[in-house]
Amino acid sequence: MNTIGNILRLTTYGESHGAAVGGILDGCPAGVQISQEAIQKDLDRRKPGQSHITTQRKESDTVEILSGVYEGVSTGTPISFIVRNKDHHSSDYNNLKNIFRPSHADYTYIAKYGRRDHRGGGRSSARETVARVAGGAIAKAILQHYQIDVAAYVSQVGKITLNKSYHELDISNTENNIVRCPDEEKAKEMITAIEEAKKDQDSLGGVISAVIKGVPAGLGEPVFNKLHAELGAAMLGINAVKGFDYGSGFEGTSLPGSAHNDPFINDNGEIKTTTNHSGGIQGGISNGMDIHFRVAFKPIATLVKQQNTINKEKEEVQIQLKGRHDPCVLPRAVPIVEAMAALVIADHLLLQRTRQI
Amino acid sequence: MNTIGNILRLTTYGESHGAAVGGILDGCPAGVQISQEAIQKDLDRRKPGQSHITTQRKESDTVEILSGVYEGVSTGTPISFIVRNKDHHSSDYNNLKNIFRPSHADYTYIAKYGRRDHRGGGRSSARETVARVAGGAIAKAILQHYQIDVAAYVSQVGKITLNKSYHELDISNTENNIVRCPDEEKAKEMITAIEEAKKDQDSLGGVISAVIKGVPAGLGEPVFNKLHAELGAAMLGINAVKGFDYGSGFEGTSLPGSAHNDPFINDNGEIKTTTNHSGGIQGGISNGMDIHFRVAFKPIATLVKQQNTINKEKEEVQIQLKGRHDPCVLPRAVPIVEAMAALVIADHLLLQRTRQI
Amino acid sequence: MNTIGNILRLTTYGESHGAAVGGILDGCPAGVQISQEAIQKDLDRRKPGQSHITTQRKESDTVEILSGVYEGVSTGTPISFIVRNKDHHSSDYNNLKNIFRPSHADYTYIAKYGRRDHRGGGRSSARETVARVAGGAIAKAILQHYQIDVAAYVSQVGKITLNKSYHELDISNTENNIVRCPDEEKAKEMITAIEEAKKDQDSLGGVISAVIKGVPAGLGEPVFNKLHAELGAAMLGINAVKGFDYGSGFEGTSLPGSAHNDPFINDNGEIKTTTNHSGGIQGGISNGMDIHFRVAFKPIATLVKQQNTINKEKEEVQIQLKGRHDPCVLPRAVPIVEAMAALVIADHLLLQRTRQI
Amino acid sequence: MNTIGNILRLTTYGESHGAAVGGILDGCPAGVQISQEAIQKDLDRRKPGQSHITTQRKESDTVEILSGVYEGVSTGTPISFIVRNKDHHSSDYNNLKNIFRPSHADYTYIAKYGRRDHRGGGRSSARETVARVAGGAIAKAILQHYQIDVAAYVSQVGKITLNKSYHELDISNTENNIVRCPDEEKAKEMITAIEEAKKDQDSLGGVISAVIKGVPAGLGEPVFNKLHAELGAAMLGINAVKGFDYGSGFEGTSLPGSAHNDPFINDNGEIKTTTNHSGGIQGGISNGMDIHFRVAFKPIATLVKQQNTINKEKEEVQIQLKGRHDPCVLPRAVPIVEAMAALVIADHLLLQRTRQI
Repeated sequence: MNTIGNILRLTTYGESHGAAVGGILDGCPAGVQISQEAIQKDLDRRKPGQSHITTQRKESDTVEILSGVYEGVSTGTPISFIVRNKDHHSSDYNNLKNIFRPSHADYTYIAKYGRRDHRGGGRSSARETVARVAGGAIAKAILQHYQIDVAAYVSQVGKITLNKSYHELDISNTENNIVRCPDEEKAKEMITAIEEAKKDQDSLGGVISAVIKGVPAGLGEPVFNKLHAELGAAMLGINAVKGFDYGSGFEGTSLPGSAHNDPFINDNGEIKTTTNHSGGIQGGISNGMDIHFRVAFKPIATLVKQQNTINKEKEEVQIQLKGRHDPCVLPRAVPIVEAMAALVIADHLLLQRTRQI
Repeated sequence: MNTIGNILRLTTYGESHGAAVGGILDGCPAGVQISQEAIQKDLDRRKPGQSHITTQRKESDTVEILSGVYEGVSTGTPISFIVRNKDHHSSDYNNLKNIFRPSHADYTYIAKYGRRDHRGGGRSSARETVARVAGGAIAKAILQHYQIDVAAYVSQVGKITLNKSYHELDISNTENNIVRCPDEEKAKEMITAIEEAKKDQDSLGGVISAVIKGVPAGLGEPVFNKLHAELGAAMLGINAVKGFDYGSGFEGTSLPGSAHNDPFINDNGEIKTTTNHSGGIQGGISNGMDIHFRVAFKPIATLVKQQNTINKEKEEVQIQLKGRHDPCVLPRAVPIVEAMAALVIADHLLLQRTRQI
Repeated sequence: MNTIGNILRLTTYGESHGAAVGGILDGCPAGVQISQEAIQKDLDRRKPGQSHITTQRKESDTVEILSGVYEGVSTGTPISFIVRNKDHHSSDYNNLKNIFRPSHADYTYIAKYGRRDHRGGGRSSARETVARVAGGAIAKAILQHYQIDVAAYVSQVGKITLNKSYHELDISNTENNIVRCPDEEKAKEMITAIEEAKKDQDSLGGVISAVIKGVPAGLGEPVFNKLHAELGAAMLGINAVKGFDYGSGFEGTSLPGSAHNDPFINDNGEIKTTTNHSGGIQGGISNGMDIHFRVAFKPIATLVKQQNTINKEKEEVQIQLKGRHDPCVLPRAVPIVEAMAALVIADHLLLQRTRQI
Repeated sequence: MNTIGNILRLTTYGESHGAAVGGILDGCPAGVQISQEAIQKDLDRRKPGQSHITTQRKESDTVEILSGVYEGVSTGTPISFIVRNKDHHSSDYNNLKNIFRPSHADYTYIAKYGRRDHRGGGRSSARETVARVAGGAIAKAILQHYQIDVAAYVSQVGKITLNKSYHELDISNTENNIVRCPDEEKAKEMITAIEEAKKDQDSLGGVISAVIKGVPAGLGEPVFNKLHAELGAAMLGINAVKGFDYGSGFEGTSLPGSAHNDPFINDNGEIKTTTNHSGGIQGGISNGMDIHFRVAFKPIATLVKQQNTINKEKEEVQIQLKGRHDPCVLPRAVPIVEAMAALVIADHLLLQRTRQI
C-alpha cells in the first residue's frame, strides 16, 4: 500500500530519521532519457533550508540511481533511487516518544500498528516525499517526450489569495521568488504573512494550483479511475492536503448548467471548447484542453507555540515543539504536486495504449 | 479499471441502454447478513422517477442476486447482482449518434476508444451507479455489524446553501423530503430552485455532505492510500463530481495552525479531540472521531435548452436534447455517496486486520 | 481474488447450483469483433452431456452478453456475460451437507469461510469454468486479430500416454473424437480406459498438452510475471490440476546444458532456434518460437464407489456419491486450458505495448 | 511487474553489474522480530563462492536494512533492504554485447525493450534473487511466529535422483553437505556429477523438493489464486525453472481416483487424511496437512563449452563464455525456493484474516 500507479508504479520507503528514503519506479518504458541532474533539480526545489521561510534542517538530498538506467537511458527494468538521511536530530524527539502531538499522526499510528518510530514523525513525515519528487522527475522525462508540461504554483497562503486564473498569469515566473507564486506582488504579501506566522510561532496553510498542458484527448478510465479521480487521490495522498477540485470545482457548483457547459468548436481543424469549466476532463477522460486543478493544504500541525494534549497514558500534558519546521509548507510542496501529477499523467499515457485493438 | 477497492472489490458493468447493469462484489467476508430488501431500499432511493424533481425515466430497478449469498448470509464467494434495463428509449438518441454534446463524454469516449455506444450515454451514463449503490448496500451490511453508520445529505443546491455543520442538524430528517436536505426550510428553497431550473430548461449543481460515525481508530494506509485519499477517489469517480474536501477542507486553509490543530483530551477514558478540523483522519488514518467530508457536483450537462456544439465531422451544429433528465442530480446522488463511502470504509476495516502480527 | 490478468482482467462468479455463473472481462480493447457464436462454440466444447464419457447433467449453457459489445464489436467497456444454471439437482446433495468428501474442497471451504453452499460443490465446482471459457473465447478473438493460435489436446488418460510431441501430430484432428486426442489410435485406447473406469465406478486423470503458435517475441515480464509463470498460475488455477511444465519441463532436468541449449540461427532473415527446449520462452519472455506446455490433472475426486470419510462432527462415515459426474474431466478441460492460455497471452500482448517509449 | 504478493508485497530491483540489488517488502505486519542475522544467514546460503561446486564470483552480499524496522521489530511501514554489488567483472561481457547467447534472455530482452544492460545478464541474472532471499527471510520471521516451517532440498541433479519421499528423509541433514541433499549417499553422487559436468565445461539441472509444515487449514483463494497456483507462480518465476507440481503431481495422473483420494480421519480430535496425494491443498485451500511440491530446474545455459549462435546482425558466430558460473544452480537455489514459498504462505496467512466477518 506504499505504491501508486497502474502501469507506471512508484513504491516508496523510508522514515524521517531512518537511514534513507527512496523508492522504486517500476514500469518506466525503455528508451527514456533519464538525467540525474533533472531529478536533482526537482529535489533541490523540495529541499529543506532553501530559504528563510522554510525549515532549517540541512539535507543535501543527493540522489543515487541504483538500477534501471544504463548509459543515461531507461532500460525498462525497475529504477531504484536512494537519498541518504544526514541531518537528523533524533534527540529532539526523545521527549515526544509517548506524547500525541495535536493533529499529527502520532496517535493514529499507534492505533494502527501498536507501535511507531517516533523520531521526526517516522513514516508520516513529509520527508517521505523526497521519493515522490524523484519518481515524479522521471515521469516528467516521459511527459517531455510527448511535449506535456506540468506546472504548479502557490495561489493562496493563509488569507492572501491570488484571485487570477492561470490564463492571466505568467507561470514561468513561479521560480522567481521563494514562495513560488507567479504574481510578484502577491508573492511579497505571502512571504510577509509567512514571516509573521513564524514570528508568532504559528503556521499557515493555503492552496496550490496546477495546470497541465499538452495532454492528448483520451487519457483516463471511465468509471472509478477517472483521470481527475486519480489526480485527486494522488494529491490527497500528499501530507497536509485537505481538498481537491478541478475545472470549475467547488465554485462551479452554484452556476446553472447553461452557463457551466463548455461548447465545442472547430478551431482551425482542432476540436476545442470555448470555455473550460471541465478542466480538460469530461466523463473522466482528457479532452485535449488544459487540465487544471487546485489542492488545499492545512496549516502544518507542528507549532513552536505551547499546546495542550495527552500522552499514551491519556494524561493531559503541555508541549512546546522544538525541531526545525516549516511555518508554511506550500513553497516546498509545489514540486511534490507536480511530481504526483506527472506520475498520474504518464501512467495513463501508457495505459491508453492498451485501449484499442 | 472498472474495479474499486483493495480487499473488498467492486467491479461494475453495463450501459444505459444495454441489456443490464450490474456488478460483482468480491472479498465480502463470509457471515454477513445480506438482505435483498436492504439493497432494494437503497436502489429505490437512487431510482429515477421517484419525485417530480427527478428524471421521469421509469425503471423498477429490481435487483437479482446471482451468487455469493446462501440462506441470506454471505458465503465469502463473489456476490454478483444484476438489474435489467427496461425503459430505454434508445431512439431518443438516434440524432445524437454523431454529435458531441457539450460537457458530456461523447467526444472523449471517441478519443479514447475510437467508437462508443451512444444510446443514453452508454457507459458514461449515471445509470452505471445502480451497481455502486447495490455494492454499497452490501458494504453497509458489513459496517452495520460494527455499528458504523454512513449518512449523506444535500447541503447545497445552486445558490441555496445550508450553512450549518452536521452537528447542528438532525440528519435523520434527510429522507423526509424529496431533495434530501435535513433542514426543512432549506429543503423547500432547494426544491423551488430545482423547479425553476426545470422550467428554465436548465440544470443545477450543488454539494453533498457526509458524516461517518463509529469508525474505529486505525483505518487507512499512511502514504498513497490515506483514508481520505481513498474516500476522495471514490467520490471523484461519481458522475458530475468536481471536488472533494474533508474536515476543515478548503475553508480551513486560511486558518493559522494554532486555531486549526485539534487538541487531544481524555474523555472519560476515551481519546478524543476537542475540535475536529481533522475530519476524523490524521496522517491518513482514522482517529475515532466522526469522519466528515463534502462532495461538489457540477450542474448536469444535459439541458433541454438549445446549445451550440460540433459533430464528428467537426461541423458546427445546434442541439436540443430530448430524453428524460434530472434538472438536479443531487437528491438521487445521496445514496451513491453513501454507497461509495461504505465501500471504502468496509475495505479498510478488512485491510486493517492484516497490519499487526 | 476471483480476478485474473493485468490489463485484460477476468472476474468470475457463480456456484454450481446457484442462479447463474458468469463473469466480467475488463480491459478488452475496443474494436474487437466479438461473435456470440464463437463463445457458444467453446462453451459447447466444455458443456456437460456432450458424449457418453462425460457427466449427464443437462445444461444448454447458453451465454448472454450483457454489456461492452455494440453492433458485434467491443466498445472498450467491461464485457459481462451470464449463463443461467438450469439442470441442478440440489437435492442430490442434501445428505452431503455435513460430510467432508475425500479430496474435495468441502472441509477446506469450511475451514476458510466457516460455512459453504454445499449444493453441487458450490463455488469449488468445475461449473465455474463456464465463465473462464466464455472470457477465453473473447481473448481468442483478440489473438485471432494477430494470427495467434492456441490449441490444446489430451495427451494422457490414466496409463494411456501419447508419446509424441506436437510436431509429430496433426492437431487439427483433436475435435474428431470425443476424448480430444489428435492421435486416433490412442484416442480409442483412452476412450476404452474411461469406459472401464466408469464401469468400475472410478475416475481417471491425465495430461493436457498445449501449443501456442504465432506469439511475437517480447511478451512476458522478466521477474515474477514471467510468461510461463503466468501461464502456469492460470493452469494451476483450473480444477483438478496438479502440475505444469513447459518446454523440456521435468524431463529436461536430466539433460546436460550442452544438449539442452537451443542454438540461435538466422532462418531466412528470421531469428529462430534449432531446437526448442525453451518452449518458446527465454528469461520469462517469448522468443517467437512455438510456446508449448503440459498440464497434469488428477483423477476427479467424485467417485460412485463407496468411500470412508468423516463428517463435521468428526465422526467416521461411509459415503457413496450420487450426482452426475465425469469419469474423466480431460476431454471437457481442453477448451478450459485453451481459454486460460488465450487470456494470458492476450493480456501480455496488451501489456507489451507499454514497455518502450 | 517486479512485485509479487497480495498483502505482503515484495518489489525487487537491480542488475547483475549495476550498483546494487535490493527490494522493498511492503505489508509486513507491525510487531515482527526482524533479525539482520537471520536475513544474512539465508543470503549466505545463496551466496556465490560458498563451495567448489558453485560460481567463484566473490560477493560478501552484506545486507543493509534501510527502513521499516525499529529496535529490531517491524513497524508496519515498508522494509527496504540493499545489497551492494562488489565483484563485477563487467569487462568479461564486452564481447557479448551484440551476441545472443543460446537459451539466455539476451535476444528476448532486446525484443521486449529494444535495448538491455548486457553486463552479466543485467536484470535476467540470478543475482536478482538476492532480494528474494532477503524478503523471504522476513517472511520466514512471520511464519516462525505461527510455528510454520518451510524446508527445501535438492532431490535430483542431472540423472541422479533421490527416490524417497520427504517422510523417509531427515531433512535436518540438508545443510550438512554442499549440494543440499539430505541423503548423504545421494549427495555424494550428486557432487561427483557436478564435478564432472564442471570438468566437461557443461552444466546440470535437477529438481528441488520442498515441504511446509504447520500451515493451518483455510489458506488460499478458491479460484484463480489457489494456494498451489500462487506457489507455482512463485516457483516458475525463479530463474531456470521449467516446471512445478504438488502433492501427487505428474506421477499421480496415472492413478485411478479410488487410489488417489485421501480419506479423512479423526486423529485424536484433529482432522487429518490417511494419505496426502492432495499435498496439503484441496480446492486450492490448505487442509492442515503438510504442503509438498517439486520444482524442475533446467541445466543452466551458461557453458564454457564452445557454442554456435548468432549476433544482433543475425550473423552466425561461435562463442565461448568466460565469466564465473555455476555448473549446477540447485544447491544455491534451495534458499530461493524457501524464500518464495515463505512469501506466499505469509501473504495468505494475512489475507485469510479478512475472509470471515
